[in-house]
Amino acid sequence: MIITLTTDFGASEYVGAMKGVILSIAPEARVVDITHGIRSFDIRHAAYVVKSVTPYFPKGSVHLVVVDPGVGTSRRGIVIETEDYYYVGPDNGVFTFVRGIERAVELRLKARSKTFHGRDVFAPVAARLAKGEDIASFGDEIEEIVRLPIEEAKLHGKAIVGEVLCVDAFGNVITNIEEPLLRKAKINYGDRIRVRIGGRELEMPFLESYGFARRGELLALVGSEGHLEIAVNQGNASERLSLKGGEKVEICAVC
Amino acid sequence: MIITLTTDFGASEYVGAMKGVILSIAPEARVVDITHGIRSFDIRHAAYVVKSVTPYFPKGSVHLVVVDPGVGTSRRGIVIETEDYYYVGPDNGVFTFVRGIERAVELRLKARSKTFHGRDVFAPVAARLAKGEDIASFGDEIEEIVRLPIEEAKLHGKAIVGEVLCVDAFGNVITNIEEPLLRKAKINYGDRIRVRIGGRELEMPFLESYGFARRGELLALVGSEGHLEIAVNQGNASERLSLKGGEKVEICAVC
Amino acid sequence: MIITLTTDFGASEYVGAMKGVILSIAPEARVVDITHGIRSFDIRHAAYVVKSVTPYFPKGSVHLVVVDPGVGTSRRGIVIETEDYYYVGPDNGVFTFVRGIERAVELRLKARSKTFHGRDVFAPVAARLAKGEDIASFGDEIEEIVRLPIEEAKLHGKAIVGEVLCVDAFGNVITNIEEPLLRKAKINYGDRIRVRIGGRELEMPFLESYGFARRGELLALVGSEGHLEIAVNQGNASERLSLKGGEKVEICAVC
Repeated sequence: MIITLTTDFGASEYVGAMKGVILSIAPEARVVDITHGIRSFDIRHAAYVVKSVTPYFPKGSVHLVVVDPGVGTSRRGIVIETEDYYYVGPDNGVFTFVRGIERAVELRLKARSKTFHGRDVFAPVAARLAKGEDIASFGDEIEEIVRLPIEEAKLHGKAIVGEVLCVDAFGNVITNIEEPLLRKAKINYGDRIRVRIGGRELEMPFLESYGFARRGELLALVGSEGHLEIAVNQGNASERLSLKGGEKVEICAVC
Repeated sequence: MIITLTTDFGASEYVGAMKGVILSIAPEARVVDITHGIRSFDIRHAAYVVKSVTPYFPKGSVHLVVVDPGVGTSRRGIVIETEDYYYVGPDNGVFTFVRGIERAVELRLKARSKTFHGRDVFAPVAARLAKGEDIASFGDEIEEIVRLPIEEAKLHGKAIVGEVLCVDAFGNVITNIEEPLLRKAKINYGDRIRVRIGGRELEMPFLESYGFARRGELLALVGSEGHLEIAVNQGNASERLSLKGGEKVEICAVC
Repeated sequence: MIITLTTDFGASEYVGAMKGVILSIAPEARVVDITHGIRSFDIRHAAYVVKSVTPYFPKGSVHLVVVDPGVGTSRRGIVIETEDYYYVGPDNGVFTFVRGIERAVELRLKARSKTFHGRDVFAPVAARLAKGEDIASFGDEIEEIVRLPIEEAKLHGKAIVGEVLCVDAFGNVITNIEEPLLRKAKINYGDRIRVRIGGRELEMPFLESYGFARRGELLALVGSEGHLEIAVNQGNASERLSLKGGEKVEICAVC
């Protein structure tokens, strides 16, 4: 059974403690690092990784997500069961994009520490799920989980209005504008587009991949999950534009 | 059989060479990264990780630690056997907090290189331990291992006097002051405390977890291993206070 | 079956997607991270890691390398079969040092995205190789692969003339000058040597390991793969000397 890890622990030793706990409870589990490079406390970034990476794993995998600025305070811990996966982590929005929820449970486990629920609460639950335990044994069912308030992108006249979902680890600025909407707005590869974002108005080409832009040039492209993103070829767009997620974005073809 | 890795190799390729060596000798071994993010050459940090993370792993695990500023010079390489684990690495203090040593051996293996004993000496030994080889086959028994000179924290009147064990990967400043001593000094959650450290005198709240402080605020708390630590909520205390381990620290409740 | 990963993805989430794809196709595969810390788009660095790290893995391992500045453009994707290993990745020079090629094939797989062939092309191929598929099923055989134009180091009178292969993750400057040539030039441990590199002329000791130099001192040594490297004890030589790979280097003993 696979248990994936997604955290903002960076290169820190605390990842190792979670692995030790998991392997002590479920020696047969395969622990797979998705990333420990979520931006510190960046719930949007974690939510995007859950959306874009976890679906590539085999059915039955347990996805453990620990991006948890409120550890030890009143935020809940939860387990979610969908048709394909289990998800374990804090109920703070990291599971915003999880669809097809069959059951969700609020964890009632007591923690040894108030500062490290990843190790003391979430890792043991993930290990026990991997061993086949039913999610009902971890707490009472809940109706709703916390989801970030992200509206769908829409066409207003000739412009698409959306928002920045998050910034990925390379500094690519990922929006909630998806490919079908681009076609509807008649924006095609090779077009120049106008982008209003973070108080600026920019013009850039809409291209098929990073390498079609000049090195250091801003471009827009459809990323690997079908989202429009703003990038710099071999550079960092979020730093150049001072964006970090949540900003409104408006794009249209340059006539 | 589990072999854990703790190094200061960062994202470097050299970790891969160690894994290749291990898997060539012990194809069944499970290689688990604890962290490669030990601060470069920071033996204190490594010692703290050995203390605080390795005990979470299943009995019988082999813990390989390579933080080795003196590689190729006269420092010894050692293997330690305790009731629960094996430890392999340089004899430079990284195993300071290993207790219950049953046997320790000085490695006599010849190295292919003078610069990478992690790959040429320690990884093969770890792999052979994982395959069941006795530690006696690696060299002669030794009586003592190198331990960092860290005194126990003590109560002097109303003040606790201790030292900074190390700085963790998040910049939290971890002291050798443990929970029972705090109770003895009548310091309780919610109190304000006075901290003398690194030539400064600071006042801060003593709280249950990071999230109870304001963002960017200094606080003291009991970390996940029961040690008093000084932290900044969503920030880096060691950078703010210019601390890196070994500094004396004195704390008392504010009257 | 082992599949190793070598990328410049850093701590990014995209590594996780590749692992998910691999484990969905080949659930029994063992995915081993060599490094995700290749300098961004640094093909020389990747080529050196392929040369210096992959040979430590068991025969039959599949080595997946994704350092791919031209993803989505016209560069080819390839699979290489040698006596010992399979190699999968972009045909841009990352396999410069692979010797004993028995067959090489240009990948004809269609990609879901134009921006992430690591996930959509290379990972599935690696997984299918690990399951025993023949490389012929992935495309047509090719005669030549792209190799970086790196000349052999040579003795000119008393001086050795070579070049910087790459800079490793620690900032050590690794040259293509190997041990036998040093002996031919009568350069011995303890000698002082003169180094012409990047428009400078430097003098430094030639020592057996980093720890024999003073902290912060420049030194030359034979690295763990037998290459002469220029390093700073507990420091970063490439930053100090502004080197990044490809620079000519000339060394001789100081008379």
